Parts: sequence; structure tokens; C-alpha cells
Amino acid sequence: MPIEFGPEYVRRLAPYQAGKPISEVAREFGLDEAGIVKLASNENPLGMPESARKAMLAAVSDIGRYPDANGFVLKKAISAKYDVPEDWITLGNGSNDILELAAHAFVQPHESVVYSEYSFAVYALATQGVGARAIVVPSVHYGHDLGAMARAIESDTRLIFIANPNNPTGTFVPAAEIEKFLVAVPPEVVVVLDEAYNEYLAPQLQYESVAWVRQYPNLLVSRTMSKAYGLAGLRVGFAIAQPGLTDLLNRIRQPFNVNSLAQAAAVAALNDKQFLHESAQMNAAGYVQLTEAFDAMGIEYVPSFGNFVLMRAGNDDAAGSRVNLALLKLGVIVRPVSNYGLPQWLRISIGLPEENTAFLNALKKALAE
Amino acid sequence: MPIEFGPEYVRRLAPYQAGKPISEVAREFGLDEAGIVKLASNENPLGMPESARKAMLAAVSDIGRYPDANGFVLKKAISAKYDVPEDWITLGNGSNDILELAAHAFVQPHESVVYSEYSFAVYALATQGVGARAIVVPSVHYGHDLGAMARAIESDTRLIFIANPNNPTGTFVPAAEIEKFLVAVPPEVVVVLDEAYNEYLAPQLQYESVAWVRQYPNLLVSRTMSKAYGLAGLRVGFAIAQPGLTDLLNRIRQPFNVNSLAQAAAVAALNDKQFLHESAQMNAAGYVQLTEAFDAMGIEYVPSFGNFVLMRAGNDDAAGSRVNLALLKLGVIVRPVSNYGLPQWLRISIGLPEENTAFLNALKKALAE
Repeated sequence: MPIEFGPEYVRRLAPYQAGKPISEVAREFGLDEAGIVKLASNENPLGMPESARKAMLAAVSDIGRYPDANGFVLKKAISAKYDVPEDWITLGNGSNDILELAAHAFVQPHESVVYSEYSFAVYALATQGVGARAIVVPSVHYGHDLGAMARAIESDTRLIFIANPNNPTGTFVPAAEIEKFLVAVPPEVVVVLDEAYNEYLAPQLQYESVAWVRQYPNLLVSRTMSKAYGLAGLRVGFAIAQPGLTDLLNRIRQPFNVNSLAQAAAVAALNDKQFLHESAQMNAAGYVQLTEAFDAMGIEYVPSFGNFVLMRAGNDDAAGSRVNLALLKLGVIVRPVSNYGLPQWLRISIGLPEENTAFLNALKKALAE
Repeated sequence: MPIEFGPEYVRRLAPYQAGKPISEVAREFGLDEAGIVKLASNENPLGMPESARKAMLAAVSDIGRYPDANGFVLKKAISAKYDVPEDWITLGNGSNDILELAAHAFVQPHESVVYSEYSFAVYALATQGVGARAIVVPSVHYGHDLGAMARAIESDTRLIFIANPNNPTGTFVPAAEIEKFLVAVPPEVVVVLDEAYNEYLAPQLQYESVAWVRQYPNLLVSRTMSKAYGLAGLRVGFAIAQPGLTDLLNRIRQPFNVNSLAQAAAVAALNDKQFLHESAQMNAAGYVQLTEAFDAMGIEYVPSFGNFVLMRAGNDDAAGSRVNLALLKLGVIVRPVSNYGLPQWLRISIGLPEENTAFLNALKKALAE
């Protein structure tokens, strides 16, 4: 028998299922890459902002050098934008890195982590990756039940993950409920508030989570530049928290976790309000386009506050994978979510108007099969 | 008293000390960036290869998309170059990522890890980062004592780190000794053979570590593209090991750990033999330039097989930091190594001929102070 290496909790990990890249679908299904529509990974259909592209290209000459391990310029830009000191900021190789750093920094094997059913897959991976015990709180209407999550905290709970808006369901918890939750959580339990989709919230729903960070030393707000900022391919995320948490994150952070071009592009993108505005506008219009079509087709969906919509593909547990496969053959990539315990559903990222149209046409064919 | 978060072993971590970026030295010492010579981080003074720059720029249009989580094209290139199956390869955000992944995948808190005194700082960080116990084996002539390292293995040892050549001392262990060591190590203990500086070895010293990977299911060879390949700013490293190890590394690997531009550039750089050859040639000439000057100045140094030289700055324990500060004021950045227990020494990366000359001139002034 071959030797088994590593702890049992690592051997039991099921790796993250990424959205299929366009090139892979083209290879698998014999399709032309140019004709494929990818609405699978909640990316910004506008791509990266032109401001970021310029800043990135200006940094290309420096690639032989290591990145700035302290991210001086980028932290300054984040500090200015969110009005927090630079030592309240941790840079991540995407917010995925932030979520994993939080698990590594705050949790030991056999301690517990609380998160919601149907919340972002990386919470489960980060929890199991450190050998911790997951306390998964049942969802209500596909969203977080914060009251139940507060009650689920046990004496060995070190960390709680909350996604707002949540991926893959798109649900949103209003500010008042989060504040109530923060009051209820014991001060020694770290709360990670994952706001990956924050920039898509309508102005009247926006709330100032950084004000909570000033009030709660156990709160860490996680942000990504892979969604509305259009920099998924470069890998930039960041955390804002008081030094008690930030200092530990930076101790275990890999010093060169954010590459040079990502740092340069992120500084430009952070300040590109026009691009963010256009991205949010286009997303709002795309949401109306998709959901009106779903309504017309009698398709159930979960009202979404992100840049994607969870739609019911059918009423049997093979529906998600069946419709997904039919869509792939038609050159449309969406995201099956059976790994989330949602085998009847598919998650559709909101694309350009013509991409949404292509998807809806393909969906009609796929459902008619 | 403020609440202390996280395990004690994380709180005790001292973060990695990176080489000072040129911009930071310019700010601190009021110098002009253009006049600063940085020989502090073992980077390739030629920068990135032109082939990689072109490949990278061709990939810029895709930045709004997530990177390929499976690194299909890059793994194919590594597979072809090293003649190993693709499922023997793990991609890393630099080889720093590979080293940390190894600690996370194979070691639990309170188990032990063996490495050598004066070996790469990340081994200690990765060990403490998972709460493991470090067994640090005394160095012989600033290099690895593999016999003593094999004897130091205890029943709870899960991992051994070996750097060949070693950083920061530049020492090299010949192939025959490593092979003897691999025979001596129990098959359930993982050996990470870190070959970050392999490409600088003279042809007659090269050995085929991948052949050992075929023979030893507990061997993991780590490579970086931050040194001879000139891609430090982009962050690419990789591991080659049999699936028993590779499968676990990929379970805990962050899916998008290597960004899109890094993947594209790495494919081109891997196959750019001419650039590697020029880099090694220039490094060999620079080594002669520096060590002949050291000999003429009566400065002790450790014979090096990497792209850097460890030189004695003086015979008192303040020598390293004193000479380092004097050099900084003259606009030359080198690496103090007191954090390695080598306070009398400095590590000098080999630069372009004119950079080496600038350093030597500054060194003469610094030592005369």
C-alpha cells in the first residue's frame, strides 16, 4: 500500500471547482473560442479599466524585480480611499488569499468556524484546510440567518465568515442586521465580512462597514478587485481591520503575494470612479434584462444584489448539470452549483447585453431539449 | 487588556524581511531612484526576457477574466521541459508559495520539520506558521550537513527542507551526497529539495533531480522563475513530485494563485534557452569580478554557486548593519543577514558589470569610514 502523506483533513479536501476557462471549453467541445460566451465566474464583462491597463503597462519594465513586499503605494491608495491607517490593511493575492490567511491566522486544528449554508465555497475549504470543524448554519431563503449564526457560536469558535452580498445566491443582509449581529458576537471571535460584491449594491443599500471596523476590534472586512474593478486575472484583494488582526495576517502573509503589475493596476482602478459607475450601471441593466426574461419564461430565480443570478434549471436534482451541459454544447459557460448543495440551480454571471441575449437564446434551446 | 487573537505560534512569527525596494531607499535617504543600485534580492539584473515580455503583453487583453486555475498551458510546457506527467506538477505564486504549501499539506501543529542552520528564511517561517517544531541542524562551513540532518529526523518529523544551492550562503551539495541522503530518509518523511538557484550551476555540477522524483515518492523538487528566468515581479514557481504529494498540494493550493500574465510569461521564459544561457554567463563573470575584488581587498567570502556572494563585513556583530547602512547612504542596497544568525556578513547579489563596480567602489568607501 502506498504511504499516505499529510494530515487526514488535507487528504479529505475537495479542491475548489473553478469556472471552466473559455479555452478549455473550446478544446472539450470542439468550439471556436471567439464564439463562446462565458458567464461563469462573476467577472466584469467590461474587462479591466483603461486606467489600470495604462498603469500596469508603465510598471512592466520592473518585472525582473520582486514586488514591493509592503505594498507601499497601493496601501496608501486604499488608506486614502477608506480613511484608515495603512497598518489596518492587509494585501491579498485576490480576496481568496485574505480568506485563507484569516483561517490560518486565527484558527487551529479542531477549533470551529461558523458560516452559512449556500455561502461562498472558499469558507469551507479554508476551514478544512486548517483542520478546523465547520459549523454550517442552515440558510433562510438562500441567505444568511444571522440570528441563528450568532446562536451557533460555540466555546471553541474562532472565526465566522459572512458574505454580503452572498455568492452564489446573491442575497443581501441589510446594514442594521449586520450591526445587530456584531453586537451579539463575543469579542474574541473574529468576524470576516466578505464584501466581494459590494460595489454592485444600489446607493441606498450601501453601508459603511469601515465605521464598524473602527468600533469592533474583531471585525475584518474583505474586499476584492476581481469583480467590479475588473482585475480578476491580476489577483488583488485586501482586508481592513484593526492592528490586532492585521498584524497577525501580515505575519503569515507571503511577502510577495501581490505581484508588481497587480499593485500598479490596483492603484489606478481604485480611483477610477467612472469605470466603477459604468460597471454598476451595466450590471443593473443586465440584471433587468435577465430577470425580465426569466419572468417571461416562468423561471424561478433568487433576487440578486451581486453581478450574477441564481436561477432554477429544473425541479429534479439532475437539472443543473443537464442544462449546464446543453449550454456548454451551445458555447455558453455558466456555473453549476451542485457542489453548494444546489443541484437544481445554475448561477449566471451578468454579461454584456449581447452576451446576456446569447445566453437567453441558448437557455431556451437547452430547456426545450 | 486587549484580546489576543490567533494561536500563540502565529503571534510569535517574525515576518519575512524583504530586500528594501529602490523606491523605499530613495524615500528614506533622500536619493534619486535612478542612481540607486539594488543588489539585495538575488534578482536577474537583465530583467525579464524579451520573449516573456511579448507573451505577457499578448495576454493583457484577458485581465478581466480569472486565470486558468489548472494552468493548462504552463503545466504542459513544464511537463515537456522536464519530461514528467502534468499531474506531477504544482504551480505556485513564486516558490515561496510552494514551500508554504508543503508545510500546510504535510505538517500539523506540534509535528516537526528539519532544516539547516543558515538556510532560507522561509523554511523557519513556514514551519512556525503551521505551529510545527523546528529541528535546526548546525551548518558545516555555512552549508548543509546532510548526514547530521538525516540523523536529526525524529518520529514526528514530517518534512525536511534542503536548499541546493543554499541561500543566503551560496553553498552547494554535490548530487552524490543528496542521493545518499534520499536513501537514508524514511519513506514517510517528505523531502523538499529547493533548487531556486539551479540554473546558475556550472554544467559539470548539474544533476537530474527529476530522475530522483521518479524514484522517491517522498521527494518534491521546488523551482522558481524569480531568479535566472527574470520573472520575480510576476510570481511563478512550481513543484515536481509524484501524485501522492502533488495531489495534496493541489488540494490546498489557492485556485488562482498564479496570475494570468505570469502564466503567459512563464511559458515563454521556460523555453528561452538563450536568455538562461546569457544570464548564467553574466553571473559567472560577475562572480569573478566580485570575488577577485574581495580577494584583493582581503575580504572573506563563502564560495558561492548562486547569483550572490556572502561576504564578511567585519569581525564584530555590528559589522553587517554598520556597513549596510553606509552602503545605503551611498545608494547601494545589499542584504543584511543578521536575521539568519550572520550579523558579521552581508549578502551581495551579482549585478550587471557596472552595478558590481558601483558596489565595489561604495564598499571601499563604506569600509574606510
